[in-house]
Amino acid sequence: MALVFNSNDIAMMDQRYRATFINSLGGFKSVCMIGTRSRAGVSNLAVFNSFVHLGANPPLFGLVFRPDTVERHTLDNILETRVFTVNHLTEENYVPAHQSSAKYPKGVSEFAETGLTEELQPGMFPPFVLESKVKIAATFVQKIDIEINKTILVLAKIKQVMLPDDVLRTDGFIDLQAAGTVTCSGLDAYYTAHLLERLSYARPGFMPQPHVVS
Amino acid sequence: MALVFNSNDIAMMDQRYRATFINSLGGFKSVCMIGTRSRAGVSNLAVFNSFVHLGANPPLFGLVFRPDTVERHTLDNILETRVFTVNHLTEENYVPAHQSSAKYPKGVSEFAETGLTEELQPGMFPPFVLESKVKIAATFVQKIDIEINKTILVLAKIKQVMLPDDVLRTDGFIDLQAAGTVTCSGLDAYYTAHLLERLSYARPGFMPQPHVVS
Repeated sequence: MALVFNSNDIAMMDQRYRATFINSLGGFKSVCMIGTRSRAGVSNLAVFNSFVHLGANPPLFGLVFRPDTVERHTLDNILETRVFTVNHLTEENYVPAHQSSAKYPKGVSEFAETGLTEELQPGMFPPFVLESKVKIAATFVQKIDIEINKTILVLAKIKQVMLPDDVLRTDGFIDLQAAGTVTCSGLDAYYTAHLLERLSYARPGFMPQPHVVS
Repeated sequence: MALVFNSNDIAMMDQRYRATFINSLGGFKSVCMIGTRSRAGVSNLAVFNSFVHLGANPPLFGLVFRPDTVERHTLDNILETRVFTVNHLTEENYVPAHQSSAKYPKGVSEFAETGLTEELQPGMFPPFVLESKVKIAATFVQKIDIEINKTILVLAKIKQVMLPDDVLRTDGFIDLQAAGTVTCSGLDAYYTAHLLERLSYARPGFMPQPHVVS
């Protein structure tokens, strides 16, 4: 049987129930740790599930920030320094990654608190997560204020990508299952992903076939 | 061994290679079919992997559109009629869903071409996908032009949610694995998701525990 919820049903939900419901409604989500460092040198790490691809050339993505939460430290650091890192979650690090969403006071490094290892690279100001396999260094491009609910969309450009050599396929596809990348749903559920198949490029008149990588 | 790609390496990639590479870089993505109908009554269906949660109260999400592609028909219809549907992909319908991304001419319904079944509901103008289990009716809120690469972010409000009664947990969590919802990576790879665990709300000083639903 199908359950149906209209606008009024949603408006009448208990606040926590609604947050869980709406957050799990849109499907499985990209989840990553954003690493930043303040000008004063304090490292910060926070888990995000709002990474959205915007374009490949130039390589751009977006991140959504809620200004009333712990994520604010991340946003402050990005606006201050214009640089940050994106680090994938894996089966090995999703528990400390989730912990990085706790409301630590400003000035406390989530690396120290969660047990994740801060990885500093020559010429890179913000910290990476040593335990992550797929890592991106990014620079701030633009901040867009979404007036209707005071969220903030940050646009960023990809400056450097690091990944294990055994997960890159010959056509540029990154095999995230081989990389151990996990996905999430809602506010607290973590999942591994298992390939059904890659499909061929869709053209009118031909149903998709399994994608063949030469 | 880790591979490292800097800005110049990415800029020098073959265009298709780069599109595949950058599209699979951000982690597993939400994937859904957007159902619309033009004022003239022509139904349209297109697959999107850019659904992003924006807030629960009011229930808002975003979708990214690339104006130079087939998605344009979807955007035209949304701007014309202000309403659309979001339909989850499952193991049973991801192949025809992928096919809906083929460049059909305007005036052709992807329902007819892909074999998916158009579901019209009383009082709802845009079509749903009968074969989907989790479905959302949404209304247009705002269009934000992202100047740097001419993409368009559409903000929308959730007006109605339909889901099977056996996937809703007592705390509002929608069990997408039980609903058969699939996730995607890159431009053409589809995956099932398998729960590792739900974690407790993160608080400083306490490492996350398995989430207990009463």
